[in-house]
Amino acid sequence: MDEFQLIERYFVRADEDDGVITGIGDDGAVLRPNPSLDLVTVVDTLVEGVHFPAGFDAADIAYRAVAVNLSDIAAMGARPRWMTLALTLSKADEAWLDAFATGLFEAASEHDVALVGGDTTSGEKIVVSVQITGEVGRDAAILRSGASPGDTIYLTGTVGDAAAALELMSAGQSDDYLQNRFRRPSARVDYGRLLVGSASAAIDVSDGLFGDLGKLLAASNVGAELDLRQLPLSEALQANFDAESQRRFALSGGDDYELCFTSAGASLPDAGGLRVTAIGQVTSGRSLVCRDESGIVEYVDSGYLHFQ
Amino acid sequence: MDEFQLIERYFVRADEDDGVITGIGDDGAVLRPNPSLDLVTVVDTLVEGVHFPAGFDAADIAYRAVAVNLSDIAAMGARPRWMTLALTLSKADEAWLDAFATGLFEAASEHDVALVGGDTTSGEKIVVSVQITGEVGRDAAILRSGASPGDTIYLTGTVGDAAAALELMSAGQSDDYLQNRFRRPSARVDYGRLLVGSASAAIDVSDGLFGDLGKLLAASNVGAELDLRQLPLSEALQANFDAESQRRFALSGGDDYELCFTSAGASLPDAGGLRVTAIGQVTSGRSLVCRDESGIVEYVDSGYLHFQ
Repeated sequence: MDEFQLIERYFVRADEDDGVITGIGDDGAVLRPNPSLDLVTVVDTLVEGVHFPAGFDAADIAYRAVAVNLSDIAAMGARPRWMTLALTLSKADEAWLDAFATGLFEAASEHDVALVGGDTTSGEKIVVSVQITGEVGRDAAILRSGASPGDTIYLTGTVGDAAAALELMSAGQSDDYLQNRFRRPSARVDYGRLLVGSASAAIDVSDGLFGDLGKLLAASNVGAELDLRQLPLSEALQANFDAESQRRFALSGGDDYELCFTSAGASLPDAGGLRVTAIGQVTSGRSLVCRDESGIVEYVDSGYLHFQ
Repeated sequence: MDEFQLIERYFVRADEDDGVITGIGDDGAVLRPNPSLDLVTVVDTLVEGVHFPAGFDAADIAYRAVAVNLSDIAAMGARPRWMTLALTLSKADEAWLDAFATGLFEAASEHDVALVGGDTTSGEKIVVSVQITGEVGRDAAILRSGASPGDTIYLTGTVGDAAAALELMSAGQSDDYLQNRFRRPSARVDYGRLLVGSASAAIDVSDGLFGDLGKLLAASNVGAELDLRQLPLSEALQANFDAESQRRFALSGGDDYELCFTSAGASLPDAGGLRVTAIGQVTSGRSLVCRDESGIVEYVDSGYLHFQ
């Protein structure tokens, strides 16, 4: 199976009315964006042995590769539309590719994203780069730099689950709920779009809440006081780990792909079934201060707890 | 040096008035395309040990990674505008990164392409994925599928040089001209844009003329008769190899990044100093027939002669 056959067989799917004038199969894709909107472009890569273990399920690799990009799109408040795939593989195993394509289109179709181009190459380790372009109202994209003192800091969903899953995995254990949170992260695309006009700033939590919130604060030239008692934790996280580990995973664990955002408003858009929790306040200082039942506590960020 | 510092140091450059509303440093880039144009998106990946040898000059790796994408943009007749970079590295060596960034921006600035986003990851081998988005008039993109019987087939520049350079390299030899053709391919962006309205179909020669022209013919449901005596060969290629090798490199060698296009017109846009050669005719058959001084000759395509 050469590259051309591989692409035809696994990656060409019928497009609906999605702004794709010419899709896969030419030197490039021709796209027609909405002329009154801005574009948002994101790119994220998953590397075998770094972002997922060797032998990880192909459908999950593909699903995650799309989801982590959708999460960046969500953090900008944009609607995802088109994606390209750069896939490096050691061999073109048909069962693997079939599963990979299934996971890829599963994640993409949840948000009507069309695969419009790609490149497959050979290499020793699996490297998956997905790039997604979306649309957002002119000058309406939610940036990291818009937070002001007095804004409330919110978080969608729960944090720490993916890092907890990795910890269990490395100990040869597993919890279905946590495992699924790592394998199939839910990009908060729908809620991200609703946050346009409500959120003053947003970032997706990919490298750990403490670090990612820190980036948002730095971009906004503000500080924050975080109430650690308010951190939204899943029942599964609490059932499997002690309080110290829970806090470490929630603050420094990566791969949760929740949205952390700030808002000055008294009310937020209806999040449907999605949990949205106020976790702190933006301050005029320059530091990120943590508070718990004992008062101000020092937290040393251990950094992104990824696979390796 | 963490990823954030690495990006700040090497990849953030001041943008001019280039449609970039928000560049590197947020979850995604915000771009404002011309509302009356279509977008063209391409992606291409270079893998260490496959597309370039280990130890290859970092500036050349980056230059080539951009150029091969610009070549796809050129083959669509589009104007390149924005690029993203997904870079997988075994280590963040400062001298290497400095050289890489120099080569990257050298290639990009030749055509006013702005780097708007990226992702750096760690991995055992270097993998460079570049994605470029450009603009083209509405419904004006040059596709592979527009060739008609009677059209003349043209080729820019010369072919076979890059494959010849690789052959010399593997024999421990070198020719400066050929080596430079491999290291620093010239994407025919300016001429590609001029071909809008003149060319009926176009493809860039990345995998070898015979195979790439075959893809154009298949997409157009036509055949062709190629006059091998007309194949444009560089003096360096002819000086270093016998006639049989010259023909093999010219027809099956990859990595030249010239444009192969068809046109029904009696005249072509002024190519300035760029050589443009008529090499054959589109036919109503379905096969690609080669002719030389002895008449119709069979040519068995040995396929893309890449590094490995």
